[in-house]
Amino acid sequence: MERGEKICITPIGVLSCGIRSREEAPKNYDESDLIGVITVFPEYQAAMDGIEPGQTITVLFWLHQARRDILRVHPRGDTSRPIRGVFATRSPVRPNPIAVSELLVLVVADTKITVQGLDILDGTPVLDIKKSVAWRVRVTE
Amino acid sequence: MERGEKICITPIGVLSCGIRSREEAPKNYDESDLIGVITVFPEYQAAMDGIEPGQTITVLFWLHQARRDILRVHPRGDTSRPIRGVFATRSPVRPNPIAVSELLVLVVADTKITVQGLDILDGTPVLDIKKSVAWRVRVTE
Repeated sequence: MERGEKICITPIGVLSCGIRSREEAPKNYDESDLIGVITVFPEYQAAMDGIEPGQTITVLFWLHQARRDILRVHPRGDTSRPIRGVFATRSPVRPNPIAVSELLVLVVADTKITVQGLDILDGTPVLDIKKSVAWRVRVTE
Repeated sequence: MERGEKICITPIGVLSCGIRSREEAPKNYDESDLIGVITVFPEYQAAMDGIEPGQTITVLFWLHQARRDILRVHPRGDTSRPIRGVFATRSPVRPNPIAVSELLVLVVADTKITVQGLDILDGTPVLDIKKSVAWRVRVTE
């Protein structure tokens, strides 16, 4: 690939959940027990084969409402904390605002996966789903 | 966003390492102690502020050589294992081939981050870097 070349991706699904605004969203996914539903678009349904309740999956979301032009932030929006580069944080603000969530699978039915552990806004596009290799841990910093 | 709308992303850096072919790459990042260097492009250097040796970072790579048109695979390429949907695996083959690696930071110097734990090909574009919240665990399946 050439330097500066653009990459085009198409969402493979979309999230439905009760989080309608950033104020309602937990600050870190590992503090959330919120439940929602990922709907995989029908043309990708074959790729879901093997996802089962009780598994933890890694889900990549495209944070379509996040700013992409800010390189430094106060971690967790706390202005008492020193500004840091976004690559040293998990702020949604970043050049390519892709979120990585570890979510517990509760139900799989047709093209819908009910998941727990969300901190992502309703209507957010899903880019990818993977088998998880990580345990969720609470971050205290 | 509209259904089917394309998202455009631009890499924020590139990986240099000794893995020149898929045959040389470990099958799972958590089995690797291979070292390489992420070079962040200068326009994003401010976003690196706060990344320090000893941290684990989550790095998102664009697997530019991976096929995007296959929805079901034998896990780990092992044909003795039943075929599964790619969303239930960590195969590089997937509609949006974005890899998520947990890497140990060894050195940070200027725009370069030396990292350990790679299973990614030399020359692979980097999409994002985040503070890690996960511990690395070995998967035995």
